Amino acid sequence: MPFIDLPDGVPGIVSAFAFRPETAKPLSELAEILLCGPSSLSSGEREMIATLVSTRNDCYFCQSSHRAAAAHHLDCNYELVDAVRFDYPNAPVSAKLKALLAIAAKVQQGGKHVTAEDISRAREQGATDLEIHDTVLIAAAFCMYNRYVDGLATYTPEDASLYDQMGAHIAGEGYLASGLAAAGT
Amino acid sequence: MPFIDLPDGVPGIVSAFAFRPETAKPLSELAEILLCGPSSLSSGEREMIATLVSTRNDCYFCQSSHRAAAAHHLDCNYELVDAVRFDYPNAPVSAKLKALLAIAAKVQQGGKHVTAEDISRAREQGATDLEIHDTVLIAAAFCMYNRYVDGLATYTPEDASLYDQMGAHIAGEGYLASGLAAAGT
Repeated sequence: MPFIDLPDGVPGIVSAFAFRPETAKPLSELAEILLCGPSSLSSGEREMIATLVSTRNDCYFCQSSHRAAAAHHLDCNYELVDAVRFDYPNAPVSAKLKALLAIAAKVQQGGKHVTAEDISRAREQGATDLEIHDTVLIAAAFCMYNRYVDGLATYTPEDASLYDQMGAHIAGEGYLASGLAAAGT
Repeated sequence: MPFIDLPDGVPGIVSAFAFRPETAKPLSELAEILLCGPSSLSSGEREMIATLVSTRNDCYFCQSSHRAAAAHHLDCNYELVDAVRFDYPNAPVSAKLKALLAIAAKVQQGGKHVTAEDISRAREQGATDLEIHDTVLIAAAFCMYNRYVDGLATYTPEDASLYDQMGAHIAGEGYLASGLAAAGT
């Protein structure tokens, strides 16, 4: 039961966006730029960063919806997304993405956990300044979204098919046109 | 020394905004709505919530700049802001603000730390749904801003007069016109 009067039956961040459209706008735009905008990292890679952070923050709604979005960017390969989610050092992804996931995992704990060595390792694998920047900001942003969703005790469905539909919609339409933003913009 | 090639001598989040103007825009707009927009909480109260969270996240740049912004909204009463920052249960602020600060402190730890009792206590002191929503989102947003600033190891001046100027500018002009956004928009 949500802590404030959010619309009935509307899940997670969508209900908070409906409650406060003013803040929904920049929150949706930030997600759109970071996860769907032009980047040398694919949307699948960026959604996996978001999923890892949301998993470590134990946010069921966010980890489920972004896991599904990542999978839909990756030919519905949920197995790959879960490998990253639970054991990225041994997941079948590039060394560069692993180094960026290591930075994201540090940001999840706190900004000061990131070390010069973490950055050097990412650079050695070919990561650019912009990729490092966006990784830090994606991880930081999900420390916000996760707290927003759980701090209001928003409605969290458990039906996996609902998240799969949500993921397909995000992967196809992005965050400005998708159900995650539609309620608020 | 910043982890990526940020502009020399530009402090904290301002340097990150200059590096990535696309994300600076929604990040500035979010701060503007949450801290300066229409609200039944004063900007001074909202900046104290931001300062408490930034202090607990140990982000020197954010706690210093928002401490100064809060003070400038409150007749330069730095003593009051520091009382809230370090010991809000005993600070000379309203019982409602104390109850909201307690919620913000829980969000800083993680969204699931907020309890129905925390919310009830705030309601008993007259907090509205919108005030509770905005408190949760301000606290969550500063868990992002703080990680963004420290996760990139941005330049952090120690000169108190610089933060005082920054606080005056924010309190006077807000985040869209202020130095915190000017670099990026």
